[in-house]
Amino acid sequence: MATPPPDGSVRAAGIREVARRAGVSIATVSRVFNARSTVQPGTRDRVLEEARAVGYSPSPLGRNLVRGRSDLLGVILPNTGFPLYGAVLRGIEDTIQTSGMSVLLASSRDDAEVEIRAVQHLLRHAVDGCIVVNSRAGSGLPSERVYVHIAPEDPAAPHRVELDNVRGGELAAAELLAGGARCPAYVGAPGRESAERERGFVTRMAAAGRQVYHVPGDYSEDSGLRAGMALPAEVDAVFVAGDLMAAGVLRALHQQGRRVPTDVTVVGFDDSLIAPLLYPRLSSVRQPAHDLGVAAGRLALSVIAGTAGPDVVITPELVRRESSIRVPSPRPP
Amino acid sequence: MATPPPDGSVRAAGIREVARRAGVSIATVSRVFNARSTVQPGTRDRVLEEARAVGYSPSPLGRNLVRGRSDLLGVILPNTGFPLYGAVLRGIEDTIQTSGMSVLLASSRDDAEVEIRAVQHLLRHAVDGCIVVNSRAGSGLPSERVYVHIAPEDPAAPHRVELDNVRGGELAAAELLAGGARCPAYVGAPGRESAERERGFVTRMAAAGRQVYHVPGDYSEDSGLRAGMALPAEVDAVFVAGDLMAAGVLRALHQQGRRVPTDVTVVGFDDSLIAPLLYPRLSSVRQPAHDLGVAAGRLALSVIAGTAGPDVVITPELVRRESSIRVPSPRPP
Repeated sequence: MATPPPDGSVRAAGIREVARRAGVSIATVSRVFNARSTVQPGTRDRVLEEARAVGYSPSPLGRNLVRGRSDLLGVILPNTGFPLYGAVLRGIEDTIQTSGMSVLLASSRDDAEVEIRAVQHLLRHAVDGCIVVNSRAGSGLPSERVYVHIAPEDPAAPHRVELDNVRGGELAAAELLAGGARCPAYVGAPGRESAERERGFVTRMAAAGRQVYHVPGDYSEDSGLRAGMALPAEVDAVFVAGDLMAAGVLRALHQQGRRVPTDVTVVGFDDSLIAPLLYPRLSSVRQPAHDLGVAAGRLALSVIAGTAGPDVVITPELVRRESSIRVPSPRPP
Repeated sequence: MATPPPDGSVRAAGIREVARRAGVSIATVSRVFNARSTVQPGTRDRVLEEARAVGYSPSPLGRNLVRGRSDLLGVILPNTGFPLYGAVLRGIEDTIQTSGMSVLLASSRDDAEVEIRAVQHLLRHAVDGCIVVNSRAGSGLPSERVYVHIAPEDPAAPHRVELDNVRGGELAAAELLAGGARCPAYVGAPGRESAERERGFVTRMAAAGRQVYHVPGDYSEDSGLRAGMALPAEVDAVFVAGDLMAAGVLRALHQQGRRVPTDVTVVGFDDSLIAPLLYPRLSSVRQPAHDLGVAAGRLALSVIAGTAGPDVVITPELVRRESSIRVPSPRPP
């Protein structure tokens, strides 16, 4: 494997030596390695022969400069510390590495302006394209490079990979209905994705003759705790727009002495690594984060190659655990 | 902000145009922008003037080629999906961005060979240096670039940032002793870090006249569940080498009807985002993952600049939550 020397001096001597031995200018040697057609075939062969003789090969940065490609793919995540995004990142990495590309990372902190600055920063490294997760900036992104979006807020953003959130809401409703839900609630959050999950949930519940309480949250555990405390006493089934927020709902139910799943069944969303760690283990609509990353990586490779395929919509599945399987309550006789 | 054009053609015309207008060769224009001293001051001023006139500036890749720097910092994580590593990554990012550098990411999958391949891959992009988290390869890494290590397995690796694990074990022992521990156990894992945590724990417990049961695990939740099931009945306090494994220990205790913290107190290690989500909330020795990332980012910048400071050892703190605060058991009269 060719690796760069610690500094440029060895490399510089190499190209001079090749030029001297081949009896051509340094510029001609450079043109040969740049695969330009302005070098005579005879000259080209002589240069390559001498380059082999002295073990010369152009530096990675020089090669990239000539190709007009950096083999870098920018990835912008709202927050590198959130487990779901880590799995997306791993899916992207697994996919693009086989094409010799690497991930250049930046964070948007869920803020459109920070996102735009992050993209500008990545563009200084001449990334070949960017994958943006949960973009807030949408069409405000610099137009010099191509973008693939995972679940962007803007419903019109091109080159997108996302989950069928409406279907996810329907699955949650079906699960809670199977557990005997009579009085369901939805704990939501701002943004397009939560609105779509709620639409699927409410539609399916309405078809079964059930009205849905709406309790607002913001995906944080704290907001889930507050939402859980605010649930009307008659609620016997809760669908929560994210697992972290569901952790808060579960804690609020424990604190009120309402047993899960005996008194209240709960379904979360994401199936992130925390879902099976909660008590009781949380049933959740699965976002296949690794699959989303793989699909985005593939789409990015094809967009960069100029052969973009269609957008990708992934169908979610429900992962059933203890929190949604209602156990008949042992009552004193 | 200067951003690269969609392809190289505009750029190429730019440098030709500058050369023509200034009456010099393209190589001379290149030398001016490379800040080499072989250009006469008068010529240099004329080139810069014409470059301003036509709006020419060299491409990022070309500028980097000349500087012999890519402004890329390689970061190798065992697993991008693990929350603690995400926080380390964010700390690194926060620190190096202010120096105009970006993070180029790769995964080692906790395997020395994969780690070496990952580094070789990053070297192809001419990274200026690498931060390796929990290195397994140690001195087997390619020697072309500088490395900063966060908690490497090899105790002799240079340029290191790590936690005082022995002190962490002492803190856990002090907390469990304060909660009345008479018969403590340690649930450990392979490797240097767990051995150091155990050493601090056992030493402090021995000073208080307590013998420690050792139960093996591997940091996974499953291994914690098995370890929790294997705990001797007389154990009344458990220190677990990682929070994820502690989640398994807590579940095993719940399943056996042993109340936490009434019957058994538990302290984990990491204080990752799952610790406050567990039931009961887990007391844990905090690995300040963001701080570790910040310290590694700073050390990397100084090593790359040739002014490496000393290694960094961070002192841990114990975060007290419900699992270690023993509540007197309500007994029937």
